[in-house]
Amino acid sequence: IFLCSPCDTNGKVHAAILYTARYLGIDEVYKVGGAQAIAAMCFGTISIPKADKIFGPGNTYVTKAKELALQAGIAIDLPAGPSEVLIIADHTADPDFVAADLLAQAEHGADSQVVLLTNEPRLSEAVNKAIERQLPALDRKKIIQQALVHSISVVCDSLEECIAFSNAYAPEHLIVATNDATMLLDKVTNAGSVFVGHYSPESAGDYASGTNHTLPTNGYAKSYSGVSVDSFVKKISFQEISPEGLNQLGPTIETMAEAEGLAAHKHAVRIRLNKLSYEQ
Amino acid sequence: IFLCSPCDTNGKVHAAILYTARYLGIDEVYKVGGAQAIAAMCFGTISIPKADKIFGPGNTYVTKAKELALQAGIAIDLPAGPSEVLIIADHTADPDFVAADLLAQAEHGADSQVVLLTNEPRLSEAVNKAIERQLPALDRKKIIQQALVHSISVVCDSLEECIAFSNAYAPEHLIVATNDATMLLDKVTNAGSVFVGHYSPESAGDYASGTNHTLPTNGYAKSYSGVSVDSFVKKISFQEISPEGLNQLGPTIETMAEAEGLAAHKHAVRIRLNKLSYEQ
Repeated sequence: IFLCSPCDTNGKVHAAILYTARYLGIDEVYKVGGAQAIAAMCFGTISIPKADKIFGPGNTYVTKAKELALQAGIAIDLPAGPSEVLIIADHTADPDFVAADLLAQAEHGADSQVVLLTNEPRLSEAVNKAIERQLPALDRKKIIQQALVHSISVVCDSLEECIAFSNAYAPEHLIVATNDATMLLDKVTNAGSVFVGHYSPESAGDYASGTNHTLPTNGYAKSYSGVSVDSFVKKISFQEISPEGLNQLGPTIETMAEAEGLAAHKHAVRIRLNKLSYEQ
Repeated sequence: IFLCSPCDTNGKVHAAILYTARYLGIDEVYKVGGAQAIAAMCFGTISIPKADKIFGPGNTYVTKAKELALQAGIAIDLPAGPSEVLIIADHTADPDFVAADLLAQAEHGADSQVVLLTNEPRLSEAVNKAIERQLPALDRKKIIQQALVHSISVVCDSLEECIAFSNAYAPEHLIVATNDATMLLDKVTNAGSVFVGHYSPESAGDYASGTNHTLPTNGYAKSYSGVSVDSFVKKISFQEISPEGLNQLGPTIETMAEAEGLAAHKHAVRIRLNKLSYEQ
């Protein structure tokens, strides 16, 4: 297991990243990031080894490079691209909290998308006003403004309609900002990670709640799970059949091989069964 | 869950396939196979729905089509292409059994590859003779002969060297035809499915031993597992944080957000903590 991470302008990798790598027992760190890091891990270079599988989120360029790596025969965790959040909020939601969560997701990059769904028209208006109030104080307001240009707010007839919209959108992050979310949660079929109630900001998932935050974006939550311990596990199946076992299983194998028209598959069993009956 | 399967010349899907579909509760079957079936499931047609994930092995064209589907945003099980077997055999192996297993794999298609590794030069010769003896009686001998053209037999210095070769090759199917295989098996790092001992033909794995036989080919066993129940599972993470919980986790989230330079992430926590302290 080795790590690629970009440097700051002084040519240093961030101390928090190096500390974490050391803590995890990763002692091979290369000072490179972006699409060029993916290319190096995909094909190998004089100094960077070729990887079997590449993990980690990134911007549009990194995601595209990982897609090309996949075509070149290297496995990837999942196509995790520009970040997105979808919030379903009802009349119990605090417009300030909803606005803050939308702004937090929008600061990831100009290509981020944030979506608000609500069954309460007044909430939609109150959130817009809260965004205007909160935005000026934020460091990355230019990025946020760019992201907000292609972000949307939709007033639906019911919370059920919000969930149906969300399942079709398949958001990376879904925040359900309602008082009694349990019944709604049963209907969530497509989402990366779900944040329930008014005190579960998405930034908790990024940093502290313990769920993984490398998640499927761009509709991929319809087909992909987020990164988990499973993503690092490779399974090999082993089977050992005894002579007695083959005597029992053999006829099944022969019938099935014959049904598929694969005589040599049947023969590989028959030649063993013949020898066993000759030895008896 | 729906099924695509090619027809025979009478326009019928094989009865065994239809029986199995019914048995599994799959009542949607389309009469189409090959790359065109993959294209239909990837984009959807008037009669065939668009799928979220496509499962199933196939020839070179199907594998290529699945790779293109992956680029178009549809998940696939794994890149399972032309079949292959690698056999590691020592002096205890029966040349007839080894030959039969090589022939069984070779009948899958002209693009199949079969590999024999042994530390016993005489076994290699005996297997070649057994292949010549067994081949004439097999139905698909033309296909087998084409596959054998690009197949190889290698005499190594030791069984350990055989395993090292096998791990570099990462075979779809690995047969370890030795008397005491246990010590060797611990060293297997890259393989799809492993068949242990003299009475475990690969055809048992295809039809009866219970292991899945949709497996990674072409070196992909370095990075991919075979299909398993996990392949059909999608995981969504849920998190709900109470006001007390956010009071405890909040400072950690704020520190981490600040370290990453994401002020709006910190703000989404701070605005909640402020309201909580105001309410108290």
